[in-house]
Amino acid sequence: MQQNLPQTLALLARTPAALNALLRDLPEAWTLSNEGENTWNAFEVVGHLIHGERTDWMRRVKIILQFGETREFDPFDRGGHIREIQGKSMAQLLDEFARVRAENLGELRALNLRQEDLERRGRHPALGVVTLSELLAAWATHDLTHLHQISRVMAHQYREAVGPWSAFLGVLKCAGHSSAS
Amino acid sequence: MQQNLPQTLALLARTPAALNALLRDLPEAWTLSNEGENTWNAFEVVGHLIHGERTDWMRRVKIILQFGETREFDPFDRGGHIREIQGKSMAQLLDEFARVRAENLGELRALNLRQEDLERRGRHPALGVVTLSELLAAWATHDLTHLHQISRVMAHQYREAVGPWSAFLGVLKCAGHSSAS
Repeated sequence: MQQNLPQTLALLARTPAALNALLRDLPEAWTLSNEGENTWNAFEVVGHLIHGERTDWMRRVKIILQFGETREFDPFDRGGHIREIQGKSMAQLLDEFARVRAENLGELRALNLRQEDLERRGRHPALGVVTLSELLAAWATHDLTHLHQISRVMAHQYREAVGPWSAFLGVLKCAGHSSAS
Repeated sequence: MQQNLPQTLALLARTPAALNALLRDLPEAWTLSNEGENTWNAFEVVGHLIHGERTDWMRRVKIILQFGETREFDPFDRGGHIREIQGKSMAQLLDEFARVRAENLGELRALNLRQEDLERRGRHPALGVVTLSELLAAWATHDLTHLHQISRVMAHQYREAVGPWSAFLGVLKCAGHSSAS
């Protein structure tokens, strides 16, 4: 399907509550364990989502609306979550994610974007020309990438514990699809 | 890590609320779309989770405790969700999943399982001898398999809409790992 703003907003609005329900007060054996060297645990993923809210998605929306293709987006700092998580608890991160996401969606709704706005183009430092519609679709799909990742990272912790059931549990066959998703 | 009953319970207890936060009142374009022929949409996955609560996990716990390896588990009906979802709304399924899961966890807690109980063995119709500990670990990991699946199935709906961002979104590279997970 095409990107559809109400559908995109509906998903973006639900992710913080879904992660909150899954992760708040969950034992740290689930949330602080990763898949091995240079992989993220669920705590780091929530930090990464916060960092995207602060520095990436809405900022890029505004760059497209203000400058179009003439001003390239700032590159996203994939290590930026490290500052977000330092000294914080999972509960703090979940609260923070809910807050910054709600602020961003408030700003996005206030823009009252029309169909012709969604076709406006910007310039991504690696991907080249992209549309505002693609940016919004990517924002929502990025949430799903990390929900997919969190479920895989947590399942990995029970890889041995499930014994022969590993043959039936698809998530244990997923090797991940990039360095950090 | 080894299966640990409090950790397993903590995860099993959170899945209904996580799915509720993600899926309740979400547009049907997300929840009723699948990945193509013979694949499940999110609505069907919730039906499958309910069916597992009613016919599979706790029933198998009890078979192990009562009969050990002498009585093979009943096979799980992978089409059983069809009866669960007929004529229902997503909201009804989410309510039902929360209810049957809570009932099962109440029963599981009431068993006051000790470490030696977790080592008891049962017989799976396809996998052969399994332990109670493996069964409990598989129950929790099965939730994660389907959270992983739901995030992938929903992301699939924006496969085209994200344009060039598909290169960066790991979930779009996940081909699924079995017919229904």
